[in-house]
Amino acid sequence: MNRRERVSEVMRTGQRRLIEAFERVDGFGRFLEHDWERPGGGGGWARSLEGGRVFEKAGVNMSAVHGKHVPPSLAKQHPEAEGKPYFATGLSLVLHPLNPFVPAFHANFRYFEVGEAGDEGELWWFGGGADMTPNYPFEEDPVHFHRTLRALCERHPQADYPAMKETCDRYFTVRHRNEMRGVGGIFYDELSPPGQGSFETDLAFTEDGLATLIPAYLPIVERRKDMPFGEREREWQLYRRGRYVEFNLVYDRGTLFGLQTQGNIEAILMSMPPYARWEFDYHPEPGSAEARMLEFLQPRDWVGVHAEVAAAHSDGTGR
Amino acid sequence: MNRRERVSEVMRTGQRRLIEAFERVDGFGRFLEHDWERPGGGGGWARSLEGGRVFEKAGVNMSAVHGKHVPPSLAKQHPEAEGKPYFATGLSLVLHPLNPFVPAFHANFRYFEVGEAGDEGELWWFGGGADMTPNYPFEEDPVHFHRTLRALCERHPQADYPAMKETCDRYFTVRHRNEMRGVGGIFYDELSPPGQGSFETDLAFTEDGLATLIPAYLPIVERRKDMPFGEREREWQLYRRGRYVEFNLVYDRGTLFGLQTQGNIEAILMSMPPYARWEFDYHPEPGSAEARMLEFLQPRDWVGVHAEVAAAHSDGTGR
Repeated sequence: MNRRERVSEVMRTGQRRLIEAFERVDGFGRFLEHDWERPGGGGGWARSLEGGRVFEKAGVNMSAVHGKHVPPSLAKQHPEAEGKPYFATGLSLVLHPLNPFVPAFHANFRYFEVGEAGDEGELWWFGGGADMTPNYPFEEDPVHFHRTLRALCERHPQADYPAMKETCDRYFTVRHRNEMRGVGGIFYDELSPPGQGSFETDLAFTEDGLATLIPAYLPIVERRKDMPFGEREREWQLYRRGRYVEFNLVYDRGTLFGLQTQGNIEAILMSMPPYARWEFDYHPEPGSAEARMLEFLQPRDWVGVHAEVAAAHSDGTGR
Repeated sequence: MNRRERVSEVMRTGQRRLIEAFERVDGFGRFLEHDWERPGGGGGWARSLEGGRVFEKAGVNMSAVHGKHVPPSLAKQHPEAEGKPYFATGLSLVLHPLNPFVPAFHANFRYFEVGEAGDEGELWWFGGGADMTPNYPFEEDPVHFHRTLRALCERHPQADYPAMKETCDRYFTVRHRNEMRGVGGIFYDELSPPGQGSFETDLAFTEDGLATLIPAYLPIVERRKDMPFGEREREWQLYRRGRYVEFNLVYDRGTLFGLQTQGNIEAILMSMPPYARWEFDYHPEPGSAEARMLEFLQPRDWVGVHAEVAAAHSDGTGR
């Protein structure tokens, strides 16, 4: 197998396992298959679940596209790729849980090749990331999430958790609100610089990353999914999802790239929440859990000394 | 009074009359006052109604801002203004009705001055527009709306309805969906080219335009607001509002300009609907009213011969 076939196999396996894990925790909803072809070359395997018991809306999509000339947005980031043929494959997932106490979750793993060298590209690189968006300030949730991602990075020398965490904090900022979309995670444009890394070790990180999504996120789902909630929590969740929409439509590079290039609109906008709301000049009651959540939306060290102390003192209620 | 004071007076009067008219038809909701100041110069008088009987969420905002150098987005459209001081004032309104059979409505009237000449600008021009976004295909509603706007234009020789209608069709297109946000209306960047029009006649058009919003829209509200509806119509309304959000956050120049320049976020995002939803790969049942609505979302002659025939044959149910 050439490189792109090996990456595709890892991603397909990852997609299948993630879907199985999410269906198991949901216990009711099923992912439906929506395969699509891209007129310019390639296509995708979208998998979408709606109306589950745990997940109100979820998507786990894979796509693989290729073309004769790298698109402008890619050339902008990688000038050395301009005008060359390219291949890009990726797996993206977005989960919007029903229970407002369960965080939303997003992850993306991608692989690029540009140029031609036999049946492979001259240059290749991996990108990716994972971030979590809670609505309520349970300290132990981001602490667990970040610790699991830090441990992933520590298993792979080329993965720098502090740098990837900082990139994530910066990337997932709703700039016009001066707040993050959630509590961050990790994000990297290039796991190793194009042409300078080891394909084997970078593929191994990607495989481990895909597998690590489950222990990073599902324990949090398990401990929150049956917490009782009412209209107040639901309305706050929908309000926070409005910010999620603002981020994705105004700032998210992948979304804007997809819309500009007339990609598969439904797969691109799979990230949209099932319901969202906006209210003019809304401010949660000072001191409430909703107001305290805003403190979580600024960059914070979730795994250092501060986090250890916070986790030890947390009463686990988040309210 | 200098020019900017005269425009401000016309807009303030327009704002007051529109608010009175919308409160009267609502019969319950009241507009609350949210005044704000802009650190760089100027401010705004936002008026917001939420939870009305007819209007689920409505905003009628006025702002007047000035600065030493025209912002980049304005200079891009008007290179002759680059580097000069500017003054901009405008009135924007967005109405999101509760009943899915009542169209959403948006209008904006704006005035710019650049350069300095005594207490006025060297160059000035007016911009504006009004567009309507129904969820159900009642032919007589866009026919009435467009006829009223055409009659407005016919009262003012400098206003070219066909050109303004075409600009509106083009502007309010959700390009990644290849559909319009609604049934359009009129839109113009410059009522007369900067420095070439008559201030008096352009101000008179603006004043007449503000007054015409009421007969253009309220009769449609009156005939739809008490139509019974259920979950199906509500869900379709929220789905269509998702497209409204997509347009405003991805394409609307005013929204993006506001977000980029860190304007008053709440006033800028007043246009967001109270609730919206997204569903993966949703298609209304063929032949249903919801499916037929999609035919309304392509540019169409609403006032010509075709429209006359359609209106005469309409059974008025739209379903």
